[in-house]
Amino acid sequence: MSQSFVPVPENSDFPLENLPYAVFSTENNKVHRICVAIGEHVLDLKAVSQLFPFQVQKSLQAETLNELMGLDFEAWDVVRSQTQKLLTKGSELDHNVDLKAVSIVPQSEIKLHLPAQIGDYTDFYSSIHHATNVGIMFRGPDNALMPNWRHLPVGYHGRASSVVVSGTPIRRPLGQTFPDGAEKPVFGACKLLDFELEMAFFIGGKGNQLGEPIRVDEAWKNVFGFTLMNDWSARDIQKWEYVPLGPFTAKNLGTTISPWVVPTAALKPFVLDNFPQEPEVLPYLRQNIPFNFDINLEVSLKPADQNEALISKSNFKHLYWTPLQQIAHHTVTGCNLRPGDLMASGTISGETPDSYGSLLELCWKGTKTLELPGGKTRKFLQDFDEVIIRGHCEKNGLRIGFGECVGQVLPAHPVPQ
Amino acid sequence: MSQSFVPVPENSDFPLENLPYAVFSTENNKVHRICVAIGEHVLDLKAVSQLFPFQVQKSLQAETLNELMGLDFEAWDVVRSQTQKLLTKGSELDHNVDLKAVSIVPQSEIKLHLPAQIGDYTDFYSSIHHATNVGIMFRGPDNALMPNWRHLPVGYHGRASSVVVSGTPIRRPLGQTFPDGAEKPVFGACKLLDFELEMAFFIGGKGNQLGEPIRVDEAWKNVFGFTLMNDWSARDIQKWEYVPLGPFTAKNLGTTISPWVVPTAALKPFVLDNFPQEPEVLPYLRQNIPFNFDINLEVSLKPADQNEALISKSNFKHLYWTPLQQIAHHTVTGCNLRPGDLMASGTISGETPDSYGSLLELCWKGTKTLELPGGKTRKFLQDFDEVIIRGHCEKNGLRIGFGECVGQVLPAHPVPQ
Ligand SMILES: [Ca+2]
Ligand SMILES: [Ca+2]
Ligand SMILES: [Mg+2]
Ligand SMILES: [Mg+2]
Ligand code: NI
Repeated sequence: MSQSFVPVPENSDFPLENLPYAVFSTENNKVHRICVAIGEHVLDLKAVSQLFPFQVQKSLQAETLNELMGLDFEAWDVVRSQTQKLLTKGSELDHNVDLKAVSIVPQSEIKLHLPAQIGDYTDFYSSIHHATNVGIMFRGPDNALMPNWRHLPVGYHGRASSVVVSGTPIRRPLGQTFPDGAEKPVFGACKLLDFELEMAFFIGGKGNQLGEPIRVDEAWKNVFGFTLMNDWSARDIQKWEYVPLGPFTAKNLGTTISPWVVPTAALKPFVLDNFPQEPEVLPYLRQNIPFNFDINLEVSLKPADQNEALISKSNFKHLYWTPLQQIAHHTVTGCNLRPGDLMASGTISGETPDSYGSLLELCWKGTKTLELPGGKTRKFLQDFDEVIIRGHCEKNGLRIGFGECVGQVLPAHPVPQ
Repeated sequence: MSQSFVPVPENSDFPLENLPYAVFSTENNKVHRICVAIGEHVLDLKAVSQLFPFQVQKSLQAETLNELMGLDFEAWDVVRSQTQKLLTKGSELDHNVDLKAVSIVPQSEIKLHLPAQIGDYTDFYSSIHHATNVGIMFRGPDNALMPNWRHLPVGYHGRASSVVVSGTPIRRPLGQTFPDGAEKPVFGACKLLDFELEMAFFIGGKGNQLGEPIRVDEAWKNVFGFTLMNDWSARDIQKWEYVPLGPFTAKNLGTTISPWVVPTAALKPFVLDNFPQEPEVLPYLRQNIPFNFDINLEVSLKPADQNEALISKSNFKHLYWTPLQQIAHHTVTGCNLRPGDLMASGTISGETPDSYGSLLELCWKGTKTLELPGGKTRKFLQDFDEVIIRGHCEKNGLRIGFGECVGQVLPAHPVPQ
């Protein structure tokens, strides 16, 4: 592939083949604008929008990605190929010194925001290793997977308001729990705060009308792009509240996503066969298109005043259910999706203990201890711990990265008297 | 109280003491505008916005109620008292023949829309009679209420995109079920489609920042007003999917709300003591303010080509948990609320079988039959059935009504081949 006039350091997450979208502002211009990452810079797409075909210009001048997401995959291709062209050495933009000066901005000078207004956020539970691990811990090995698990992508509606962008601190929650051996529930700071390594995708395309399902083999038209996600979870609160209607306050304390939305097109070289499913799924979930991806995922934990330590290595490919099956199932009863809706994978755990996507699993419900460099240990998150999730694809010298999804735990507020 | 120059028929839901908000458009002007109902007319608040104090004018010119909701309770009082003043006989508006001609519109000539852009929708489960009934049916009388039920207002995050305004038809969903006696799950049209009689309130005020709970005795500042709600439910789909993460596709097929948002202020004359709670709740849920209301609720069912028949009479007062406790619990872990968020009560069932708020309970899991006039019978909803929910308060000759929450069931799409 051709080269960009913007330098792309070796091992950068953001070569010309990636071009993930984000929403940014600068000290001098607080207006939120759409950009793509290239190397250690971004290209301000609003600033160069007049160099794009007329029918996509307005979407590039918006303050969120919703309008671009709401166009169709053909329009996304137009924007992506024109962006690649403009960033290539010798392009119209390369020759326009003035425009280049205002539209190419160092990432060190920008503030990143939520990429879209998220109308609805859904969290699936699609890693078979994670669901099995949780099942073994709470119900024993014989009934680890619930009877419905292999027949449909289990999921629940999450809280959209509390989805925040990487870097936003997360307050350790107060809440209600029922500790083992207690006689009645107690109120206080969460003792079992955890992360969940997830990925999420944004819905794009025209969406669908209420009452009109999206068919599984059409659903690829609705997958705009992918981010990293940390679904912060208060395990002790969840355990007491979740029967019978599912997780609620244990999950709405904050959900962090990475600022960069990697377009589905950038992941094409890393497509894998779908996870084998047994027993065969019902026809509405049968999928002819391979839509699984080889995305390396890593979690690091950084205690206060310590270096970060790698604590898990997983991969998107461990997901049993694909995004297309998730969309088909989510809409099968007629639920309408809208551009900007966020769909999360659920915790992505691999088969081996070093690939588990949560402290719950890594420390097996608190029965094991995680040893960190510097003599620190963990079973769950401590105050001021920072959790850093990273992801990248790599093949034949091409690296497509996702950047970082970072959040630091702040101490709980005191219990009000 | 003084009289309006707009005629208010006897027994109208919408006297000068009510003034519920809605969003409407007309054949000649498709722009969505805010109005209040008065008798059989509405007052177009955009058309008269210049007669209001400057600081609220912009909120009255908006296309949804979100901006007005996002002001504080003092601003709501300003808007409400000025609206009452303008609609009173002999007012500035009454004397302005031209303005009156454009701003007072017959309800027969308007189309009503969703009153707000709903950022997030939450459904609680706060009727003790409903939760007990469901518990008896599925777990027997000894464990009817889950252990957490009297300690916290159980709820779950719902799907905001599929909340629709009264009058929107609801398509019978296709979906996955596991029928009794079957060997594996099957796909097809929902056989156990049900309604749920609920009420919902819209969040107003400044909301709260992520990580900052709203205290129970402050939460009244965030209750903008109330609507009727029908939480359509696919019982057979729900039964198979809901373990362990709660209802998902069984509930996102559509949720209907009435177009009128009755301001909390209009309900003041109908305040009741809160439902007695035993055992005593944790301090963060202890509420000194009475915030329970005497609101009569009715459900009618209208089969195709038949007259409607009253099938349930219930009352808001049966709710064990108050809206203020729901807000305090929802935010206790730090979840941020935004103006326009919708919080639903859960099915409101009374103690007696004629006051149950769902067909599941009225026909006791299909073991009883509902006899309708004209010889029709029902256990669950049939195609083309219309469900009509109504509500009103009444005391000393004052009637505050909620209008209607209506939806008709359309037949399922054929199963795709
Ligand atoms: Ca999760
Ligand atoms: Ca409900
Ligand atoms: Mg969240
Ligand atoms: Mg719904
Ligand atoms: Ni530079």
